[in-house]
Amino acid sequence: MSLITGTRGETVPTVPPVNPAVDTADVTTLLERGRALATPVLRAAVDRLAAPMDTVAAYHFGWIDAQGNPADGDGGKAVRPALALLSAEAAGAAPEVGIPGAVAVELVHNFSLLHDDLMDGDEQRRHRDTVWKVHGPAQAILVGDALFALANEVLLELGTVEAGRATRRLTTATRKLIDGQAQDISYEHRETVTVEECLEMEGNKTGALLACAVSIGAVLGGADDRTADKLEEYGYHLGLAFQAVDDLLGIWGDPESTGKQTWSDLRQRKKSLPVVAALAAGGPASRRLAELLAADAKSQDFASFSEEEFATRAALIEEAGGRAWTSEEARRQHAVALAALEEVDMPHRVRAQLSALADFVVVRKR
Amino acid sequence: MSLITGTRGETVPTVPPVNPAVDTADVTTLLERGRALATPVLRAAVDRLAAPMDTVAAYHFGWIDAQGNPADGDGGKAVRPALALLSAEAAGAAPEVGIPGAVAVELVHNFSLLHDDLMDGDEQRRHRDTVWKVHGPAQAILVGDALFALANEVLLELGTVEAGRATRRLTTATRKLIDGQAQDISYEHRETVTVEECLEMEGNKTGALLACAVSIGAVLGGADDRTADKLEEYGYHLGLAFQAVDDLLGIWGDPESTGKQTWSDLRQRKKSLPVVAALAAGGPASRRLAELLAADAKSQDFASFSEEEFATRAALIEEAGGRAWTSEEARRQHAVALAALEEVDMPHRVRAQLSALADFVVVRKR
Repeated sequence: MSLITGTRGETVPTVPPVNPAVDTADVTTLLERGRALATPVLRAAVDRLAAPMDTVAAYHFGWIDAQGNPADGDGGKAVRPALALLSAEAAGAAPEVGIPGAVAVELVHNFSLLHDDLMDGDEQRRHRDTVWKVHGPAQAILVGDALFALANEVLLELGTVEAGRATRRLTTATRKLIDGQAQDISYEHRETVTVEECLEMEGNKTGALLACAVSIGAVLGGADDRTADKLEEYGYHLGLAFQAVDDLLGIWGDPESTGKQTWSDLRQRKKSLPVVAALAAGGPASRRLAELLAADAKSQDFASFSEEEFATRAALIEEAGGRAWTSEEARRQHAVALAALEEVDMPHRVRAQLSALADFVVVRKR
Repeated sequence: MSLITGTRGETVPTVPPVNPAVDTADVTTLLERGRALATPVLRAAVDRLAAPMDTVAAYHFGWIDAQGNPADGDGGKAVRPALALLSAEAAGAAPEVGIPGAVAVELVHNFSLLHDDLMDGDEQRRHRDTVWKVHGPAQAILVGDALFALANEVLLELGTVEAGRATRRLTTATRKLIDGQAQDISYEHRETVTVEECLEMEGNKTGALLACAVSIGAVLGGADDRTADKLEEYGYHLGLAFQAVDDLLGIWGDPESTGKQTWSDLRQRKKSLPVVAALAAGGPASRRLAELLAADAKSQDFASFSEEEFATRAALIEEAGGRAWTSEEARRQHAVALAALEEVDMPHRVRAQLSALADFVVVRKR
C-alpha cells in the first residue's frame, strides 16, 4: 500500500485551494445547519412509509444498521440541504422556507442512489453494504420508488403555487438525472466516449440536481423564474466542479476518507473524466493506456487484478495529463459558477456563503 | 386440456351481468375514444425520453417489437384513459381537458408494471416478453423511473393551480400503489393472509390509481375537493371490483383472452382473493386446500407441476366457496361504486357512461 500512497489525493490537495481565505469553519457550520434543519423533517417523511419500506430507507440513510439497531451514519456530505436553505435566503426568505425543498431534493438524490447502486451492481456506499445487498433487489427498487413519490408529496402538500413551480423544477432535474444514468450505462458498453459526452452525462447526473437544490428554496420563497434560472446556472456548474473532484477522488482518493475501495472507479472500468481526458490527449502514455484498457475490457482476470496493476493505469492517466486536466476543469467550472452567482441580487452574507460552499466543493477530500 | 376447460371462465360468464342492459357497443366506443385521444399525447411524451429509453418504453407499450419494428400491440384495455376523459365531463368540462390526466395516469400505471414485473420475476405481459426479459433489469428500472417522472412533467407543465392539485392526487395514488406492491411482496413470504389484508392490498394496488383516473379529469376541469373525493370513491370501489374479476381470471380465465398461462395466479402461488377466501371458509375442501398449499410452498417439484395438479387446486378453491365469494365481492364493490356515483351532480349521459363502464369491468373476459 505504501508504494501507492504517494500518488493518492491525501498527500497533496486534490485541487489547489481556489480561494486561500476559504473559511472551512464557516462551511462546516453551513453544512451542519442544513443537516440539523432538514434531517428531522426528512426522518418524519420517511417514517410515513409503510413497513418494511421505512426500515429499509432508515438503513439506507444510515439511521439504523442491518439488524435494525440505531446507528449514527453520516448520511453523506449534506451539501444539497445546505444549498437549499441558502437558496431561500438568496430570495430574501427565511432559511426554514427552504426546508421542504431540501428534503425533497435529498429524497430524489437518495432514490437515485438506491436504483443506481442496483443497476451498477455497487456493493458498498458510505462504508456500508448497499440496500440491494442487504435487503434484496426488490426492496431497493420499491423503496427508491417510494422516496421519489415522497419527494413530490413533501412539496405538493404545501398546496401553494410556489410548491407547484418547485415540483416542476424538481421533476425536470429528476428527468435529467435519469437521462444521465442512461448515458452512464450506455457508455459502459462503448469503446470510446468523448470528453464532451462525459461532461454532458455528468451535467445530467450531478449538475441538474445540485442546480435544483440551489433554486428550490428561492422558488419556495417566491423568486421569479429569471432568478431561479441564474441560481440553477451557479448550481449546475458547481455540480460539474463537484463531479470533476469526485472523479479525481474515485481514482486517487484516500479510501479512509471516501469510504470506497482504492482505485474505485478503475475497478469499475468507469469512463470518468480523468480517463476520458487522458485517452483524448494523445502521446505515448495515452496510447499505452488505451491499449491496456482495451485489453482489460476483454480480460477474464480483471476481477483479480492486483493493486499494482491499477496503480500502473492510474500512473498512465496522470502521465497523459488526465489528472491535471480534470483538476483544471474543476477550477474552470468553479469560476463559471461564481460568475453566475454575481448576476443575482442577494444579501452579501448569502453570496459569501454560497461562494465559500463552492470553494469547499473543490478542495474536499471525500 | 379439454378436461379442464369446463371449470374455466370462458364457458360461463365470470360474474353474471349486473345490468342485463349493458350496452357493450357504448363501452367499446368509450374505451376507443379514450385510446384515440390519449395515445398520441402519450406517444409524444414517451418520444421525449432519451435513447435508448424511448425504444424500451415503445416496446413496453407494444408500439414496436423486440427488434424495433413497428408493432400493433393493444397496450391494455385502456379503462383508465376512458375514465379520465369522462371525469373531465363529470365536472362539466370538455373531455379533452382530461387528456393530460389520462396520459399521466397511464404513465404511472406503466411505471408500476415495469417495476412490478421485474420484482415479481414475471416473464410475460400482454402476450409478450416483459421488458426486463428483453432489455435487461437495468432498463426496466430506469425506464420505469423515467415514466414516473414524465407523468409529473406532463401535468405540471400545464402550469395551472389545477395541475398542481391533480399532481398531488396522482402522487398520493402512486404512494398507495407502492404500498400495495410492498404488501404483495411481504404476503408472498407469509403462510396466512386474511381476506381483509388481501382487500387492503388490492385497494392500494388497483383501487387507488383507478380512483385517481376518475378524479383527475374533474380536478383539471376545476372540480372542488368534495366532488373529486366522491368520484375517487366510485373509482376506488370500481378498482376493487376490477381486481376481484382479475383474480377470478387469474385462475379460471381463458389464456387466449388474458394472454397469461393457464392457472396463472396458482403457478405464482399468489394469495389472491379466491384463494384467501377459500382458506378462510373452513370445511373439508378448505382444509385440504390448506394442506396442499402448505406442501406446495416447500415443494422442490412445484415448477414441474402438471395441468392436473393445478386443476385439483382450482377445484378445491371452488368447492370451498372461494370462487363464489369473489364473484359476490365483485358485485358488492360494483354496487358501492354506483352508489358513490349517485352522490355527484353530473350530466345524465356521463353518469350513464360511468355506470356502463362499471358494468363492463365486472363482465369482461380479459
